[in-house]
Amino acid sequence: MEQQFSPSRPCRIEDVAQWDIETDVAVVGFGAAGSCAAIEARKAGAEVAIFEVAAAPGGSAALSGGEVYVGGSGGTSVQRAAGFEDSTEDFYKYLLMAGGPGADAARARVYAENAEAHFRWLQEQGVPYKGTFLPGKWLEPHTDDTLVWSGSEQAWPFSVEARPAPRGHTAQQDGWSAGRTLMEKLCGRAEALGATVYCSSRALALVTAADGAIVGIVVRIDGVPRYVRARRGVVLASGGFITNRDMVERYAPDALVCETPVSAGNDDGSGIRMGISAGGTAIQMDQFFATLPFFPPESLVKGIFINERGERFINEDAYHGRIAHYVLRQPGGRAWLIVDDEIFGRPMIHRDVTIAAVGESWEELEQELGLAEGSLQRTVEAFNREASEGRDPLFHKAASWLRPLTKAPFAALSYCRGDIPGHAFTLGGLSTDTEGAVLNEAGQPIPGLYAAGRCACGLPRWGEGYSSGMSLGDSTFFGRRAGRRAAAG
Amino acid sequence: MEQQFSPSRPCRIEDVAQWDIETDVAVVGFGAAGSCAAIEARKAGAEVAIFEVAAAPGGSAALSGGEVYVGGSGGTSVQRAAGFEDSTEDFYKYLLMAGGPGADAARARVYAENAEAHFRWLQEQGVPYKGTFLPGKWLEPHTDDTLVWSGSEQAWPFSVEARPAPRGHTAQQDGWSAGRTLMEKLCGRAEALGATVYCSSRALALVTAADGAIVGIVVRIDGVPRYVRARRGVVLASGGFITNRDMVERYAPDALVCETPVSAGNDDGSGIRMGISAGGTAIQMDQFFATLPFFPPESLVKGIFINERGERFINEDAYHGRIAHYVLRQPGGRAWLIVDDEIFGRPMIHRDVTIAAVGESWEELEQELGLAEGSLQRTVEAFNREASEGRDPLFHKAASWLRPLTKAPFAALSYCRGDIPGHAFTLGGLSTDTEGAVLNEAGQPIPGLYAAGRCACGLPRWGEGYSSGMSLGDSTFFGRRAGRRAAAG
Repeated sequence: MEQQFSPSRPCRIEDVAQWDIETDVAVVGFGAAGSCAAIEARKAGAEVAIFEVAAAPGGSAALSGGEVYVGGSGGTSVQRAAGFEDSTEDFYKYLLMAGGPGADAARARVYAENAEAHFRWLQEQGVPYKGTFLPGKWLEPHTDDTLVWSGSEQAWPFSVEARPAPRGHTAQQDGWSAGRTLMEKLCGRAEALGATVYCSSRALALVTAADGAIVGIVVRIDGVPRYVRARRGVVLASGGFITNRDMVERYAPDALVCETPVSAGNDDGSGIRMGISAGGTAIQMDQFFATLPFFPPESLVKGIFINERGERFINEDAYHGRIAHYVLRQPGGRAWLIVDDEIFGRPMIHRDVTIAAVGESWEELEQELGLAEGSLQRTVEAFNREASEGRDPLFHKAASWLRPLTKAPFAALSYCRGDIPGHAFTLGGLSTDTEGAVLNEAGQPIPGLYAAGRCACGLPRWGEGYSSGMSLGDSTFFGRRAGRRAAAG
Repeated sequence: MEQQFSPSRPCRIEDVAQWDIETDVAVVGFGAAGSCAAIEARKAGAEVAIFEVAAAPGGSAALSGGEVYVGGSGGTSVQRAAGFEDSTEDFYKYLLMAGGPGADAARARVYAENAEAHFRWLQEQGVPYKGTFLPGKWLEPHTDDTLVWSGSEQAWPFSVEARPAPRGHTAQQDGWSAGRTLMEKLCGRAEALGATVYCSSRALALVTAADGAIVGIVVRIDGVPRYVRARRGVVLASGGFITNRDMVERYAPDALVCETPVSAGNDDGSGIRMGISAGGTAIQMDQFFATLPFFPPESLVKGIFINERGERFINEDAYHGRIAHYVLRQPGGRAWLIVDDEIFGRPMIHRDVTIAAVGESWEELEQELGLAEGSLQRTVEAFNREASEGRDPLFHKAASWLRPLTKAPFAALSYCRGDIPGHAFTLGGLSTDTEGAVLNEAGQPIPGLYAAGRCACGLPRWGEGYSSGMSLGDSTFFGRRAGRRAAAG
């Protein structure tokens, strides 16, 4: 009986024997987007039922760093307290650049104008923010501080177009993975507001009316398919597709080189598939976040990445995920971070990084790496000369990270393919309007169907432009809007 | 009344007032894929109706160079006559590499094993092939010869993995654009076999039965929507989406930098949209063919491409479309072809190429281009030294194209963004099996729906791996299979 259900084929309303559960708004997935959709739908007076495939709430967001990328409107209270102004226009410009060639200006605009208010909303939901700024260059705070530089804001070319400000806002929690705190609060809030939560419940298929409108969902609960009527709408908030190998192969094959999914395990693409099955269109499906965390310690940012031609290829002070995309596409998948004894330290995440070569001279290092004679020597010579003058005319690394590499021994840390597993999650998903309505190929909303979070193609839609906090910022912000829109029916 | 139809929304069979036209197989589009589908469906005894939106048959294929990429099985008669052996395994390996990270091994396999027979079939349909080989490096034959090197076969890294053979087979026709002859023959053959052709007929929407099977299509003929019953199936063969700006923005934004669509004008994505509307899945939608034809004359291949850092970035003897992708992604969209007086000639297609700098010395050229001091000089010095030794250790350009650039004056031809319009067509499309059945997200065929040509994601699915003739080879070969499969019902 159950075999009949597939995320790729909607169940027709005439095949629904009876409604087992009735609600106004059905939310699929209880992570960042789902919890915020539920909160807003409840606040709007709608009955809300949440279906979460895992045994516990939180989704992939609960395992994350918990950063939310917000700013604009002159600055959040935290930005201002730390002495940073952040104009809406600068924030908007940064978001637009971060969106790459397929950027969605309308989405960037609405986000830039309302992100500061969104931060206050998060606080109102009970998410704790200490309010302090942690200087330096980090992947995420290792302390309980609130604000960090979390992207490429101070790096070329972003810094040229948009006045930099730190925008990674993190819930107060000692050590890494503040996503746990963020999600405890948001999920707790949704439950406190009266959303009914079904955990260990797998969404199997959407239910469609004869006119194509979405009127419910089939969910497996305790091993039995249950028909859920959603009077006002279904919000898909079940994450991306990085754990679905088949989908990655078909849609984002470049991500196959990354062996470590950034996921709690259920980013299986089923929400995207259900949306497609209802006539929704999925866009930017090739795009993904990737990282090869090569710092902290931040001293390593003063090193230079080179490829097998002995050439640099990026300003090393860019966001680590942007650098990862550049590293991954170097010829032969080969790249090394070149350091001297002064800046060397083992990277915090990959302490066992392969040290491919060590040498007392650049010539020795070059030979040990098997590079063409003179290639690395020429690169270092030019870099050192220019760095000592505080400039990087070829790659525009900011002066504060420029320092000649002169203290032997010199070393090459291997970022060649296979040596360090890449971490990735997907950015492509269902096309939606800024209210979360899922759009068909003609750009028209599918009645009763909404999506947010990595189910949808949101604000972050270009791997090279990603900054930490953009996915959670997008998921929580647009999750709220999808919940409100669904509640309005 | 007609407003109700959209390629993004199937028409339900219960909304069909009456069938205006009845046939076994309805083919949408009378280009390379559609004509071959029609021929095979007719041969299998099916009634065939073809609906072509343009006023005349031929599609974008009729404006093309008409090359068909075939080989394997020891070699076609033409390859063998010219002294080239071409093993199926070498052909297969090349196709697999050309498919990139998302390559479809099953498709490459069936093509490699049957392409030689397919070439004989094309001859049997009346496509004339003179049978002669034109040596050298060309975009397509400018003569009436049959065989040319049309890809990256002799270039690194392809040449390392697969023994090279020329595989671009072109219909006999004086001068360029032999696609005209190819399509005259194929379309003529389909008509001679009894396919009914409706030109100036726009497919508006698919017709679905209650179980989701495709049972027909709505077509606008003479301004009136007509309901077409297709007893055995519908073959979508209406091309890609390069002329649909909205789709390019959403799916292949990197292609926006190419201003010249390679299209007869009707690659509007409507076939892909109709397939999606029926539950089909579209894959590799970000991929596109691009070119900035920088030769002939082939002497220009002996030049070196550099970016604004004065660095080379590719072996210049690779396929021009592969080079275009590399050029387009250089920092700031800036790249130049550096030549000396010995090899200079105006490129045939872009005779008015901007000559960005001319100098009696490399220093002068470097200064005129505004490059960092010494950057170009170092690159040329290393290139010249190694070229004089017949090697290119960094980029692996084949020895036959290596020659030091020593004869002043030197010049830089501008391939900076905006100076030369890029030419592009899309490679992503509906996911199909090797018989042409359109697959849903679960990988299952949608009954009654088939696709081939650029409507489908076929053999060519990676911009960096494309070779001239792959799209027509794929369209004609898999078009035939789709026609046969549809006729089988």
